This record gives sequence, structure tokens and C-alpha cells, in this order.
Amino acid sequence: MMQPKRSRFKSIENTGFSTSNNTEGGRLTNKDGSINLHKTGIPFWRRTSLYHLLLRMKRWKFFLSVFLFYTVMNILFASVYLIIGIENLKGIHDDKNLLNNFQQAFFFSSQTLTTVGYGHISPVSLGANIVASLESFIGILSFALVTGLLYGRFTRPKAYIMFSRNLLVAPHKGQRAIMVRLATYKDNHLTDVEAQVTLSMYTGVDDKKVRQFFGLPLEIKKINSLALSWTLVHLIDEESPLYGVSYEDMRDADLEFLYHIKGFDDHFSNTVQQRTSYVFSEIAYGAKFTPAFHRSGDSTTTILELDRLSEYKDVELPDVEKSAINP
Amino acid sequence: MMQPKRSRFKSIENTGFSTSNNTEGGRLTNKDGSINLHKTGIPFWRRTSLYHLLLRMKRWKFFLSVFLFYTVMNILFASVYLIIGIENLKGIHDDKNLLNNFQQAFFFSSQTLTTVGYGHISPVSLGANIVASLESFIGILSFALVTGLLYGRFTRPKAYIMFSRNLLVAPHKGQRAIMVRLATYKDNHLTDVEAQVTLSMYTGVDDKKVRQFFGLPLEIKKINSLALSWTLVHLIDEESPLYGVSYEDMRDADLEFLYHIKGFDDHFSNTVQQRTSYVFSEIAYGAKFTPAFHRSGDSTTTILELDRLSEYKDVELPDVEKSAINP
Amino acid sequence: MMQPKRSRFKSIENTGFSTSNNTEGGRLTNKDGSINLHKTGIPFWRRTSLYHLLLRMKRWKFFLSVFLFYTVMNILFASVYLIIGIENLKGIHDDKNLLNNFQQAFFFSSQTLTTVGYGHISPVSLGANIVASLESFIGILSFALVTGLLYGRFTRPKAYIMFSRNLLVAPHKGQRAIMVRLATYKDNHLTDVEAQVTLSMYTGVDDKKVRQFFGLPLEIKKINSLALSWTLVHLIDEESPLYGVSYEDMRDADLEFLYHIKGFDDHFSNTVQQRTSYVFSEIAYGAKFTPAFHRSGDSTTTILELDRLSEYKDVELPDVEKSAINP
Amino acid sequence: MMQPKRSRFKSIENTGFSTSNNTEGGRLTNKDGSINLHKTGIPFWRRTSLYHLLLRMKRWKFFLSVFLFYTVMNILFASVYLIIGIENLKGIHDDKNLLNNFQQAFFFSSQTLTTVGYGHISPVSLGANIVASLESFIGILSFALVTGLLYGRFTRPKAYIMFSRNLLVAPHKGQRAIMVRLATYKDNHLTDVEAQVTLSMYTGVDDKKVRQFFGLPLEIKKINSLALSWTLVHLIDEESPLYGVSYEDMRDADLEFLYHIKGFDDHFSNTVQQRTSYVFSEIAYGAKFTPAFHRSGDSTTTILELDRLSEYKDVELPDVEKSAINP
Repeated sequence: MMQPKRSRFKSIENTGFSTSNNTEGGRLTNKDGSINLHKTGIPFWRRTSLYHLLLRMKRWKFFLSVFLFYTVMNILFASVYLIIGIENLKGIHDDKNLLNNFQQAFFFSSQTLTTVGYGHISPVSLGANIVASLESFIGILSFALVTGLLYGRFTRPKAYIMFSRNLLVAPHKGQRAIMVRLATYKDNHLTDVEAQVTLSMYTGVDDKKVRQFFGLPLEIKKINSLALSWTLVHLIDEESPLYGVSYEDMRDADLEFLYHIKGFDDHFSNTVQQRTSYVFSEIAYGAKFTPAFHRSGDSTTTILELDRLSEYKDVELPDVEKSAINP
Repeated sequence: MMQPKRSRFKSIENTGFSTSNNTEGGRLTNKDGSINLHKTGIPFWRRTSLYHLLLRMKRWKFFLSVFLFYTVMNILFASVYLIIGIENLKGIHDDKNLLNNFQQAFFFSSQTLTTVGYGHISPVSLGANIVASLESFIGILSFALVTGLLYGRFTRPKAYIMFSRNLLVAPHKGQRAIMVRLATYKDNHLTDVEAQVTLSMYTGVDDKKVRQFFGLPLEIKKINSLALSWTLVHLIDEESPLYGVSYEDMRDADLEFLYHIKGFDDHFSNTVQQRTSYVFSEIAYGAKFTPAFHRSGDSTTTILELDRLSEYKDVELPDVEKSAINP
Repeated sequence: MMQPKRSRFKSIENTGFSTSNNTEGGRLTNKDGSINLHKTGIPFWRRTSLYHLLLRMKRWKFFLSVFLFYTVMNILFASVYLIIGIENLKGIHDDKNLLNNFQQAFFFSSQTLTTVGYGHISPVSLGANIVASLESFIGILSFALVTGLLYGRFTRPKAYIMFSRNLLVAPHKGQRAIMVRLATYKDNHLTDVEAQVTLSMYTGVDDKKVRQFFGLPLEIKKINSLALSWTLVHLIDEESPLYGVSYEDMRDADLEFLYHIKGFDDHFSNTVQQRTSYVFSEIAYGAKFTPAFHRSGDSTTTILELDRLSEYKDVELPDVEKSAINP
Repeated sequence: MMQPKRSRFKSIENTGFSTSNNTEGGRLTNKDGSINLHKTGIPFWRRTSLYHLLLRMKRWKFFLSVFLFYTVMNILFASVYLIIGIENLKGIHDDKNLLNNFQQAFFFSSQTLTTVGYGHISPVSLGANIVASLESFIGILSFALVTGLLYGRFTRPKAYIMFSRNLLVAPHKGQRAIMVRLATYKDNHLTDVEAQVTLSMYTGVDDKKVRQFFGLPLEIKKINSLALSWTLVHLIDEESPLYGVSYEDMRDADLEFLYHIKGFDDHFSNTVQQRTSYVFSEIAYGAKFTPAFHRSGDSTTTILELDRLSEYKDVELPDVEKSAINP
């Protein structure tokens, strides 16, 4: 493997990742933008924010969790009512059938927890009253929590950005360029959008291999408004750390491109951001994006086809810049 | 049509819009600031944020939607109670009249959904109890959602800016100037307010027509405090891309002025922004704003008349700068 | 009145206020930081944000408003139940006494609105059921609104800054200086705090009087952390628009000092800001602040005495800079 | 004690703390980042934000407070019902036993406050109805408050940063350096993280002792992403105010290092910050952090061991820079 002279490019050290070869494993950033990192050494409950777990889980999982909580609470309280004695719940006919009694206690519990309290069953002894009074209190607190969680879930600022599946090495201005295309896929609108691309690659050989980070300059790194799709273009010119790096070199260098998009969202009136990364296997070498938007038939609006955001066609690339390798 | 020499003005490329003539249709930005764009290619539910839809719909539509949801839920659950058997709801007199039974099931459902639970009707069988238990659970979750939506609706940061109906081409310092007037129309107060004006126009002829974007510099582009009205003034001097562009040229160039205002709002303690655009038909050529505020009768306060914000009087304009056309 | 040569000081034009003498009335900014401005020309409900009105009213007014709403709603619904016929509410004994019937309908209404629904009174006819079903729906929505308002009220970011009652003209470095002292009065803590002082004054005489605005530079205009009290000092040196302006000149010039403080608050994790203004009558001419904090008896903490924030003692001032007046 | 020549280092004056020796007591910033300050002179309720008190208290204290409030309200209302007369609550068997009656009134109260309202007990007289109507109203408002508080509690933006227990004076590039290590301990991820270190120390002797503040420059003061741990390094070179300051000098100078970290959090989509401070007794002089992260066994991820964040080993330090003391 020929090693391009990359020494003259200043690597950056403030990425927050380590440059040591043998301390980090796998890709740095997952496809969804989260960091590929596992924390240990403190208890699970201290390491985890239950609130954020509930905020970020899929919708059906969230509602299922709430429903399970509701069911488990009812089972618990129904058991307590049975232990106290079913005869303390006026209106329940005690037919000495445990399952039947449990059912009735269960439904009394659910009527208490939700505060619907029909009243055809009601607590009469001190014990049952204490438990019921506690249960309705817990019920209200729980649903207050759920109200907050639901609100937190749908107000969580998200960028709703869709990235192209592949990173393209495309011909551009007679040279090679790194291209990624993105668009917002909801009816949201970002303004003052900034993109930052960081390249992580291994340089040196064998034991001396070290991971280095390079900021990749973009032709346009900030746009006023992300209305249509946006193609991020890094031209591989003499200033680029990828100058003279061939397809094979890229494979050997264990490349990872980290993309970070940040903008101001109209919906949330908040700064939103999204990250993703591309590793070697996600590179389309010698390819060009095909247009993803066109004018509507009646010429009154513009159509953005999100299903064609990742579409590209194969094209010839200019030769890898030789001078860089054999100066 | 005479084509002014606009080549020496640097157009800007980071507007987020495309410069290609035949891909975009109609005006770029709607009057309310939204982008004139339609997204396709992914399912409707992925493209849409239901939360933001409910957040931005008109107030009466929102409350009607919630009421419809309430009604539909009650119809659904009433039907289920009827299917299970009306005799499982103690307190309902089953008079074999389907409509009457449905009515009673409907109101039992509403008492359960809202958790009012009077109790003169109550579920007695296993099936009815399960459904009622589920319904009160759904009721609480739904109203938790509505609580969140209501809160989200009235806390959504908005700039509450009113723009003048027309964009004026007014005489200013012996030359022509582009003027737009704005004010906040609620008792809100913006600080550190910035304005950005972008001009979109077609240059070149016929097939070679391309859309170009130009940032229009303002005499004052940032004010500390938007207390009164604010007139945004772009002087058409030699540095302006509109230098030498006559009324007729403007019509042919399919002009669109994009205005973007951003500030910090005291009410919301958040950054708010608002956009609008003016197309050719909204230009008042040869006009001047008349004052919209005056001192109160007792000299203790200032009166801002919002209904006169768009008021202007016709005035003579200086000649179009000839030198630019025939140098 | 001698008019100091102020022409060489650049006035600023981006304050958002007008410079015309006869359009604005009274002080520009009220003591509480709100703008002294009245808007007309659009209907009250469009001009007003009910939400923000409810957010900013005093606590007792807010709770009283909610209570009145609750009472009025109950009166309204009780009337409807009476109109439909009290006999449609099972459990109410109709003793042909209107007041008595109204009372019972009123309490049934309150049990429905709050969804407490004891059930000893319950709706039996179609009409009563429809109204009750609607009322419980409205009840839930209303309390959802109140939940949001309460949350909005106590999370509204506020700077909680206390300003000294007076603006001092104090001796400083052998010259005169403008001093104002401030501190946060709650257990909140601001970081990256910036202050901006703008002076509004009339220059010229009689008909030619115009209001001009000047930014007053501060010795320290940004502090990392507002822990103790902070004295904002503007030195009246040759660069100051107040150079050579005597006490009498100040009175004639209809001075107004606008203070704007902005910082990041730990409690709210948000930017907070507060404004105030000082007019001529609030100037203490020839005065110096006395210390407002000291070490605690046991030397383990620092005591900030907020009741002494405005305390000053009279001191002699250096002569007004003559050179500025008679050069 | 030898006094290093520190006069050539510019101290900073915008820290918000006073430089006077005898006005402040104890450490400036507590370990948890709060300011060591006590405010007096205005009433407790004006000085305190109850909302923020409830927001920041420990979880168990918060829930206990809510539960106590619930219990106290029930005791109050039960007493009122007893005073009005237990016979006004239909369904309660008045057996002339005060304790028994109180219990039943208590549980009726809890059923009203939580709006569960079974209805086997119900108010029948005007007085009881008024109180019950008021209680259910208060109940709804209270739980609206609790909903808001709970939401406020779990959405309060926090940085979740763990700092090393000690500040290390470590060898670095042949000189001494000040090192502190930090990491986020939850599954949160900060971007654009900035660190600011301020050194507070006494200079001069005896009566002339004054506190001075110095900003300590860091080798890397801003990182794009706080993924792993981050070691903040201040090199004690000729530019450092600690140049030539020996261990003994540090002790005499009553050092305090103030750390302030600020970043953008993905979870909260908000700026978060955290402060801490190190005093002399928390310095490990001659020490070096041992690595706290390593590659996972299967090389697919990185493990960050939070329990080893503070771990260091003793190492030899280079001599204190003599030239600074005896130039």
C-alpha cells in the first residue's frame, strides 16, 4: 500500500475522540448519529436518564410501557385489596371464588387509579380507604407524569433530516469530490443551516498506525434556508487530506466521515441538529446524484421527491491525483 | 427589453433555493413565509408531523378536531358496549330500543372517558369492565395529549410581526430605494432584531434565463429594540443589483423579494422569526409611507396606529439611473 | 441654557425609537422595562395575547380569574339544567323552590366540571345527558388550559434583577461617572451577563430640538458571573456625550438612561433579560454607593444585603468639565 | 514565604466576585457549582423561588412534600366537614365517635380532592356542597401544579458532568501542568463544549493581601463533541500566573480554581452548563491520570469506565521554575 504524504495536512485534536489506535473499537458514530460508546463503573440508574429513555423510545413501545405500568399497578393494588379482605369493598359480591374476586378488585382498582370512581364499588373499612386514597393519589401523579412525557415526546426538537444512503466520490470541476445529499423529510423548515464534516482515518503503518482527524472544507458550508435538498460538496483539491488517496487507500485507512448538521427550526423555534457517519462500505466510488426535484405540472409549485434523494448514476472519475503520491 | 449589466454583482448561492430556471414553479416563499414546495416519495404519515399540524391549525379548527375526536371515541365505545350487551351496564334500562340503548351507552362512555363516572350506570360483567377500564385509561391519555397540545399551542414562539401590504419603491437621498414597513401587532417586544433581504430575479434571456439571488444591503439592518414601526430601507445605489433596473425590467425579471426578520422576544424568552415575500404585483412604484405613530393627546405616551402601517402616498421618483444601462 | 458641543459625538440610530421631537410622548421605557407605547388600529383581541396577559398578571389576580371562570361556568350550566328541567337530574329533590333547585343544579354542575362525579345526582334524560357530557368535556379542556397556564407562569424565564432606586452621578478617577447598582434578588445565578446603556437626550433649542441617542460605554460591560452586586460605571470623560453637561443641562435635556441587562440563567437554562430606565428626577447628583455585602461572622460565606442595594451617601463632585463648554 | 513576581500577569476584573480581602468569606464556589453567598434584606418569600426550590430538591423529598401536602389538605378539609356537621355527608354513619367520623370525613375529602368521587358518601347541605365544590376545584389546580412541577423536574436541562475528585499538578511537555478530567455520566452527548478556568488567589502580604483573578488558558478549550472523557490541561509556562509558584506558595495563596463547562445537549436541545471548584486541599501535587477507557473485547465499541475517572498515579514533577522567582 502506498502511503500518501498526508503529513502536511494539519489534523485536528478537538473532536472529543481519542487518536490512539487501540483504545476505541468499531465505528465512532452510529448511523443514527449516536456515539458508539459504552459507559461502565457507575450503577445503571445513575448512568441512565429514565426520562430520556422514555422520550426516545419508539411510539408503540412507549404506549405499551404505559399500558403495562397501568396493568401492573392494578394487579398490585387488586392483590392488596384481596389481602385486606374483599369484604371491605362494598358492592363486590364475595362468591368465594378467588379469580372472580380478584377480577372485581382489579376493576375497582382501575376505577380508582383513573379516578373514574363509579362508586358501585366503594371502600368501607379503614384499611381499604387508606389504600384507595393512596391509589387515587398515585393515579393522579402517574398520569401527571404521563402528561409530561407525552408533551416532552412531541416537543422534542428534531431536525428530521434524511441523508443519502451513500457518500459519493463524484467528478467535480475536473477533480474528484466527496458528495452527500440531504433534505428535511417533514414539513419543517430549517434556517441558518450549517454543516461540518470531519474525516477520521488511520495513517502510518502497523504498530505506528494512529487515527487522525481532519476537518473537510465544504464549497458551501452554510445556507440561509434548507428548503429543497442540499448537496454537501468537498472538493478533493491540493488542500484536501484526501488528495491523492485512491479507492484502495481509502479501504486501508479505515475511513469514517462524520457529518454534523445544525440549524434553527421554525416549528420548534429551537436549534436542532443531526449527525450521521459514512464508513468505507457506504462509499459509492464514481457516482453522481440525479436530480430529486422538479417543477409541478401547473408550474405553481416545486416537487421534492424524497424517495429519489439517494439515487445516483455511475460516472467516470478523473484519475487519482498522481503528483500527491509520487512528487 | 434592455438587460441591465448585472454581471458585476455577485449573486449568492447559499439561499437553499436552486438557480435553475425550469425546476422550480411559482413564487418561492408564500406570503405567510412558508416555502412553496411539495414533498413526495415517502408516506404521508412520515412526511407530516401531526403535532405541528395540530399546533398550527386555526383555533376553531383545533377545538373542533378535539370535539370530533371526543364524539368519535364515544360512538366507538358505545358500539362496543352494545355489542357486548347493554345488560352488562347496570343502571341502564334495556327497553329493546336500539337508539335509546345506544344513547345510554354513549353517555356512559362519555362519563368513563372524562372520568366523571357518576356511577348510576356501571359495568358489571368481565367484558364491560375490561372495556370501561380501557376506556378510562384511553381517556386520561387523550386528555394528557390535549393538555400538551394546548400548552404547545399557546407557547409556540411567534414574532407577531405585521408587514406593510406593499413593497414601495420610494425616493430616498435623491435616488430610488426599496422600502418595507413592519411592526409587532401584539403587546410583545422584540430586542436585537435583525433583517435580511434577498432578491430573487431572472437574468439573461429566453433559454439562457437563470434565477439569481442577491443579498440586498439595508441602511439599518439591526435594531436594539422593535418598539415602534420599522422601515427597512435598501438604497438603489451603484452597489445595488437593482441599479438601473426600470419598472418594466422588474416585471420581466419575475422579481421576488424575500424578507426574513429574527429577534429575541421578551414574552417567550426565545428567538422568534418571521418571513414574507413580495412579488412584482405587490410593488408600489413611486410611493412613500405616511407616518403611523404620533404622541398621545396628554403627551404621556406614544400611539402606534397599526391600521395605517401599509398607508402610503404617491410621490415622484427620480429617473432610473441611466448610466447603468448605457455606460 | 448653555448648550454643550455635543455634535462631535456620534449618535446611534438603531434604537428602535424615533428621533423626532413631537411624535413620542412621556418617558420611552417604563420603570418595569416595558415600552411606553399604545397600539391602536386593530381589534383588541388581535392586539392582545390572552396567554401572555394571564402569564404576567399578579398571582392573586390569576387565581381569582380562574376561580371566577369556575364560578361563572357553574352558574351558566346550572341555568341550562334548570331550563331543561330539574327533574332530569335524578337525585335532586324538586321542592319547587327555584333558589334551592338552582343550588343543587350548581353543585351538580361543579361535580361534573371537575369530573368528581359523586353520582348521588345524575343526568337521566337525553338533554341533561348531552349537557353533562359537554360540561365534563369542557371541564377537562379548561383544566388542561389551567395546567398549561400554571406551568407557563412558573417557568417564564425572568432575570429577577433588582436595580438601585437612583442613578448616581459619582466621583470616579478624578472625574464624574454615571453609576447604577444591581443584583439578583432570588437564589438565581446569571452567567455571561452583559449590560447595555443608552442615553436619550434632547439637543438643540426650541423648535430645532431633536431627540438623540448615545451608547454609553461601561468600564466593565460583561461579567462572567453575577454573584454579588454589580455597579455599572460609565466614566464621563472626553469620549462621553455627557462631558461638560452640568446638572442644569441634564434637567433641560430631558435625559433618559435606558439600561438593558442580558444573561444566561442557571435555573431556567435560558437567556433572561431585564430593562429599566432612569429619568432626570431619579438622578442622585453627587453621591456614592455604600457597600452592600460583607463577610459572615464565621468567615465561611458572604452576606449580600439587598435592602442596602440603593443606599448611598452624599459626596462632593469634581467640577463640571469646563473645557467642553468654553473651548 | 517567597512571593513570585506575578505583577506582570494581567488579572481579570469581570468575574463578578469582589477583589477585596475582607468582604468575602470561605470558598467562592461550592463543589456543586453554586455560589457560596447568602442574601438578606428582603423577605424570604421574595428571595426564594418556590418553583425552583421544588425543582431542585431531591426526588424523594419532592414526592414526600407532595404527599404531605395531600395529607394536610385532607386533614384540613376533614376538619371543616366535621365543623359543618358530619350529618351533611350522606352515606357516613354518624356513630358519635369523633375519630371514626374524622376518618370518614378524611376519606370523603381524599375522594373529592383526587376527583375519584365514588359517591357512596356525598354532600347534601349547602355548606357541605360549597366546601366539596371548592375542594374539588383546589384538587384539580393542585394536581395541575404537580403536573407542571413533575414536567419541570425531568426536563430541567442538566449537563450531567462528572469531574475528577482532584485537580492534578502533572508533568507535561517537560513542565508542570494543571489537569482536571471530566466526562458525562449519563447517556447524554454534548457538542460544541467550551471550558473556562479561572484562578482565584491572594497576592501581597498581610494587610495588603488582595484577591486576584486570572484566566488560565487551556491547551484545548473547545471540543466539537464530548464523547469520551476530556482532560483539561493548563500548561504552567512563562505565560501562566502559576509559573514559579511552588506547592507551599499555593497553600499560602489560598488558591481556588473555578471550572465552568458549557455545551449544547442533544437530549434537551438546549445549552447546558456546569461549574465546580477546587481548593488547595483538593490538589494532587505530582500525579497523572490513568486511562479511563478501552476497546471492548469484541472490538466493536469503546468502554468508558466512569469509576476510574478520578484515578491517578503519583509521578515525579519537574522542579518549580526557578527563574521566575529569582530572575
